[in-house]
This record gives sequence, structure tokens and C-alpha cells, in this order.
Amino acid sequence: MVATRNPLNIGASARAMANFGFQRLRVVAPYDVAFREARSAVGAAPLLAAAEEFGTVADAVADCTLVVGTTAVGHRELQHPLRRLEYGARLIARRLAHSPVALLFGSEKFGLSNDEISHCQWLMRIPTASRDLSMNLGQAVALCLYELAREPKATTARPEKIKAASAGETEQITRLLLQALARSGYTNPVTEGSTEEKVRRLVRRLDIARRDAPVLLGMLRQMLWKIG
Amino acid sequence: MVATRNPLNIGASARAMANFGFQRLRVVAPYDVAFREARSAVGAAPLLAAAEEFGTVADAVADCTLVVGTTAVGHRELQHPLRRLEYGARLIARRLAHSPVALLFGSEKFGLSNDEISHCQWLMRIPTASRDLSMNLGQAVALCLYELAREPKATTARPEKIKAASAGETEQITRLLLQALARSGYTNPVTEGSTEEKVRRLVRRLDIARRDAPVLLGMLRQMLWKIG
Repeated sequence: MVATRNPLNIGASARAMANFGFQRLRVVAPYDVAFREARSAVGAAPLLAAAEEFGTVADAVADCTLVVGTTAVGHRELQHPLRRLEYGARLIARRLAHSPVALLFGSEKFGLSNDEISHCQWLMRIPTASRDLSMNLGQAVALCLYELAREPKATTARPEKIKAASAGETEQITRLLLQALARSGYTNPVTEGSTEEKVRRLVRRLDIARRDAPVLLGMLRQMLWKIG
Repeated sequence: MVATRNPLNIGASARAMANFGFQRLRVVAPYDVAFREARSAVGAAPLLAAAEEFGTVADAVADCTLVVGTTAVGHRELQHPLRRLEYGARLIARRLAHSPVALLFGSEKFGLSNDEISHCQWLMRIPTASRDLSMNLGQAVALCLYELAREPKATTARPEKIKAASAGETEQITRLLLQALARSGYTNPVTEGSTEEKVRRLVRRLDIARRDAPVLLGMLRQMLWKIG
């Protein structure tokens, strides 16, 4: 983080690092009060306490084999290759597997200066809806780290799901519901056959969870008892 | 946003909505001062000014066909299907194409209550490194909206790249560099052939940009002139 002014942004960035499993926070020429205030804030404290402070970007990135700057683009003429976050993060993750990478964030107001950018091999931008409205610094850091920690297969991975009721349980519910409907005069004897099919399909569409099946059966039995 | 206490979080969430092209912010039972302070903050002001206030979750989501809660999970027994953000966002995006969807965020301290969660069809969690350290609310909102606005193909899309120098330009640079090396006594006449190959490969590895080729040629010509 280069020339950060707001302590909340340093704190929020440190918390996002802890959230996504990153450890080494380096600050370059921070606004002194901001850095001290952030250190004393709650949450992610160990990571902040271990943050290293440097006077220049060159010193801060000296041991890294890849240096990537982040930018809101705006209207500046860029002299560097510019990659979208989704793509750039893949390149960074590959390099991170075997050597240190620096990800640079500029100040809240001005972003990275041309001099700071000249230390970067390439630049990365977050694909926002409007290029005119820059992102909040703490949110931008969180997005980049989230994308870096992303598991590529998670989009199509099967979700954690609660178990569905078995066909037998579903049919038991259907039977009780049909009885209750018949006894309460909902079912017209003439159209009874098609009503039964409709009710059966409706119950299947409810996609009842296994844990809910006994509850529904209990409700229906109670209503049947009351209807008589 | 349900029962939000910190005005900065409402403001940051509104800004993230503007960043990723979302429009309708609804707040349920906000801490009054927070809401008023957020409205008067800079950035994303029109979106905040248009935010609707509701007394209950039921009222706030009444016109939505899908209601999804966000959770840090923690240790609560969940009665709902729980989906990872990457997967859940795909489901939401599909529904959003034709009808309104509500995405619920609970209070900073407690998240969504069981009562609030009971209005949801399912829950979504951000896959953080540790389930014990919850995320900052404004950052969590930004991540969810980023993922919702995500273009699935962006990961593999070709990056915006600056043009590379042509083989001809690269060879011209190689020739001038070889001349400079020979004239300055770097090249050993005995091993000249292998040196030439090494230098040629080295220059190719530099992956010189088209715009940099004339600059490098100019530098080499100047050095050659000085070397004599």
C-alpha cells in the first residue's frame, strides 16, 4: 500500500488479507498517523503489527520477481500492459506458487503515480461498470485478494445442499394431503383422477427436504384428525 | 441491508453498487443516525438518496421472486441450503435476468438473525480462508456484487496488451547490441559464434514492445558512436 492516508483502509485491507490467507503487508510512505491508528484498530491485529514499512516502492518490492500495479485506469495514458483482474489474478497465482509477488495499491485520492507504476511489469484493473467512479481502496484490496484466492472450479462445483425427501416420504405426504382435500370437500368426485395427478405434481415441485418430511406429515395428520 | 449500524458500511455498499451497476438499495430498520449520515456522505450519492427504507424484511423483499441471505456461517446450525458465492452468484444472475432478487446482508455484529434468515430460500457464503474471522460488511457487499457482475469468460479472455516489436526490429536491436559488445571488447573472437546466439536468445526473452524498439535502437546507436 503506497501513500495510504485513511487508517480505516489499512485496517480493512489487513482484515481482507486475513480473510483470504495472505500474510505480508508492506506499506510505503504511509501517512504516519494513519498507520499508527490502523495498528491499534481491532481485527487482523497480528497481521498489521507485522506490517513492514518502507520509504520507497523500490525497497518494498526488491525481493519480488513480479510487481503488479492496480489502477482504476481513468484517463491516464498507460505505458504498461493492462490486464483485467480475472485474468491477471491467474498469472499472479501461478507465479506466487514459487516466488514472491508484489501487488501495489496507490493512495485513495490519486492511485499510483507514474513513478510508482514504472516499478511494475504490468497493471491490473477491476472491471467496474463505470470507469469514472473509482472503487473504495479497502474494497478494491478485498476484491483482488478474493480473486487471487479463488478456486477456478468453484463456479461449477456442486453446492453444499440439504438432503431431499425420498420418493416414499413425498408420496406419503401426497396421500395425506389428498385425504385431507377429499374430506374437506376440496376434491370434486368427477374430476378426482386429474386432481390427484395435479396434487402429486405440485408436491414434487415443492422439492421437500428430508428433515421437513416428518414435520409436514405431522401437520397433515393433525388436520385430518380435526377434519375427522 | 438489515439493521446496519455503521454509516460507513452503508456508504461503501452504495458505492460498490454503483461500481458494479446495481441500483436498488433497500435498508431494513437501520440505525437511524447511520442512515442519515450515510446519505450525506460523498460518492454514490444518487443511489443512496434513492434508497428505500422498510420496517421489516418481509416488506422489503415482498416483490422479489428469490431471496438469498448472506452468512459468515460461524457455528450456527443452518436450516437452509448453503451455497458458495461463486456458484450462488450464477443462480442469482440467471434469475435476475427476468425478475427481481433480494440479497440480504445482516448487521455488522450479528449477521442475519434466524428470523431474518427464515425469509430466505437459501444462503450464500463467501469462501474465506478462516470461517472464524468474519468479513467487513462493506467488503462483503463489494465481493458479492463483483461476483454477480462477473463475466464468466473473462478469466480466459485475451488480455488488453501492448503490441510487441516485430522480428525485424528485434533483430536490428540484436545487431547493434552485438556491434557494441564487439567494439567494447566484451566478445571473445574464439567464442563469437556462440555469443551471438546467446545474445540473440537473450534479446528475444526481453519481449520488447513495439513502442520501445526505436528508443532502444537510439540508445545503442548513441553508445556505438561513443565507443567509436
